[in-house]
Amino acid sequence: MLTPPETEPLTPEDRTLMGPGPSEVHPRVLRVMSAPLVGHLDDSFIEIMNEVQDLLRYVFQTENQWAIPVSGTGSAAMEAAFANVVEPGDTVLVPTNGYFGGRMASMAERAGGEVAYVDAPWGEPLKPAVVEDAFHQHDPDIFGFVHAETSTGALQPNVPELTDIAHEHGAYVIADSVTSLGGVEFRVDEWDIDVAYSGAQKCLSCPPGASPLTLNDRTMEKVLNRDTEVRSWYLDLSLLEGYWGDDRSYHHTAPITNIYALREALQLVAEEGLEARWERHEAMATQLKQGLEALGLELNPEDEYWLPSLNAVRIPDGIDESALLSDMQADHNLEVASGLGDLEGEIIRIGCMGYSARTSNIELVLYALEDALRNQGYEP
Amino acid sequence: MLTPPETEPLTPEDRTLMGPGPSEVHPRVLRVMSAPLVGHLDDSFIEIMNEVQDLLRYVFQTENQWAIPVSGTGSAAMEAAFANVVEPGDTVLVPTNGYFGGRMASMAERAGGEVAYVDAPWGEPLKPAVVEDAFHQHDPDIFGFVHAETSTGALQPNVPELTDIAHEHGAYVIADSVTSLGGVEFRVDEWDIDVAYSGAQKCLSCPPGASPLTLNDRTMEKVLNRDTEVRSWYLDLSLLEGYWGDDRSYHHTAPITNIYALREALQLVAEEGLEARWERHEAMATQLKQGLEALGLELNPEDEYWLPSLNAVRIPDGIDESALLSDMQADHNLEVASGLGDLEGEIIRIGCMGYSARTSNIELVLYALEDALRNQGYEP
Repeated sequence: MLTPPETEPLTPEDRTLMGPGPSEVHPRVLRVMSAPLVGHLDDSFIEIMNEVQDLLRYVFQTENQWAIPVSGTGSAAMEAAFANVVEPGDTVLVPTNGYFGGRMASMAERAGGEVAYVDAPWGEPLKPAVVEDAFHQHDPDIFGFVHAETSTGALQPNVPELTDIAHEHGAYVIADSVTSLGGVEFRVDEWDIDVAYSGAQKCLSCPPGASPLTLNDRTMEKVLNRDTEVRSWYLDLSLLEGYWGDDRSYHHTAPITNIYALREALQLVAEEGLEARWERHEAMATQLKQGLEALGLELNPEDEYWLPSLNAVRIPDGIDESALLSDMQADHNLEVASGLGDLEGEIIRIGCMGYSARTSNIELVLYALEDALRNQGYEP
Repeated sequence: MLTPPETEPLTPEDRTLMGPGPSEVHPRVLRVMSAPLVGHLDDSFIEIMNEVQDLLRYVFQTENQWAIPVSGTGSAAMEAAFANVVEPGDTVLVPTNGYFGGRMASMAERAGGEVAYVDAPWGEPLKPAVVEDAFHQHDPDIFGFVHAETSTGALQPNVPELTDIAHEHGAYVIADSVTSLGGVEFRVDEWDIDVAYSGAQKCLSCPPGASPLTLNDRTMEKVLNRDTEVRSWYLDLSLLEGYWGDDRSYHHTAPITNIYALREALQLVAEEGLEARWERHEAMATQLKQGLEALGLELNPEDEYWLPSLNAVRIPDGIDESALLSDMQADHNLEVASGLGDLEGEIIRIGCMGYSARTSNIELVLYALEDALRNQGYEP
């Protein structure tokens, strides 16, 4: 017999989480994580499933029948969207303005799609005229865009203009709302979005593991009438229809505890009110932004596409970014994150999401950041 | 604005879980589920990842470098195995003796494989001579088998004979250990298994959401030298290598809390000792079996392939199975399950897994089952 390793009791570090996610989890959500399990086919769990679906419709602002938690973290919901909607031979238009457009491309290709690109620099949103041109050039069947780019802190404004362009060309629209859902205005029905997905661990402040996805009937009709099977059994919505649809029959075991947690996190959104929550995120991020400006720092995005839930802060000349981050962690037990891709080394990313979007956390970030900057001789 | 639904505080039913999973979660595991989160790239989380990997090696009884929790429930680990190992054009041999062989076939096909079958009746194990014949007939590249069939309660004996046959024919072996890992003797290295996967919510008694997977170097070499990309981005082990390998660089957000829970559940296995745990499962299931026999009932499998963790009990003539199950739930708050597939209506399935494998639960099952049988006029 191979012998077991020696391990100590689990004592995770007590970090203040102000990075790009996970955000801090609300105590009420942590509490339901320790509730005993019921079976994934138990009548009482089916009632919880119904409630989660109703709450998801509310936070997505949709009357779609299809609103479910995918059994994995945000990228699983993202892949469920692309793997089901994209059929071999479909052309999929994706953006080049951040990390997650690249991930869309990879998922679309693996689903058998042809990828075309609509360009914008990293850190800037797509311009409707450029999207229109890309539609004329590529005639895509599916258009994916990122509403809130976690890698750059850029918000995509003008969403209804983009969806209008796509629908005039007969395409389906898939929106990434990973860093906006429950924190920044996002409206599936009013903005005419066909498919949207998100993660639990950002503005919903829930542990990752069950991830929101919604599709309208028009798109589900495409999914249910595919010529070829979806390339993932686990994420095949035509099979998941048996579990999350009327039958409630077995497909795979749902992540029961994560569903409990998501229900509680969504209920907290409902209790606060979605509009009030959007306002709180903006107010807290404004406090952060003003504090950053008082330190002589500036955000990377212009005001018109500033993303309150994820603040990309330009690093002043001569400052070593990785020392900045490690000092904030070592001296203040605080997590913020570095830049990615084209913006690596140029920005740090400060989240302002869900339960983490509160005054005491903002004040700690400002204090710790000033302290870490001064360690490198920076004077505000 | 669409308005939120009315929901009450979460109060899951207090069920005794003696079905095919989830089993009851140990109080220590429930407790760590409510620990605050750290980031999925935090140094302290990377240490937890290392510990989970060491503990997984122990429960799998392997020295494989590759032992990871897949970010989803058991079927995600299963699909990770097939989606990565099967390349388009590979022939995949799967069994017909239970529900999960069929799922293997579907996953293999979606990965681009050609499926061939090795036959045994539902509820019986594969015979080595029949496997040998199937190898001669189909010359498969990959052979999948189910070590512990949750749908039928049948254990696959003679595993080293099966892996020998496969390796003599140059094939890779994928073993489903969903209902055996941590509860029934299972040895990856000694039995020369190339790939094995499992779930968390069976004999490990952990909430589902992060699922054990291991591959040996020979198989990882095949995966890392594929001609075509894996058809799932989320489950692509060549990308996950960046996160779970030496780099610890970002791929997707891990289900942090589920990893905490899995660590604690695996640590409980290590503290009890794997062999002692196998013995406990067998002793508890023996107590159950004797009690069932005293009620005049019999198990569906022969003794030589009886699966202690999942007991398939034949329903006596004239007994209405669904009334039996609903009476046990209504009168005793107890979950056991019906049969599936070819054995639907013929058996009920009683789990004896992990923390649920204890005397008080066995006694409740026997008491409740007798009571429910008497409701239908059955006299032991």
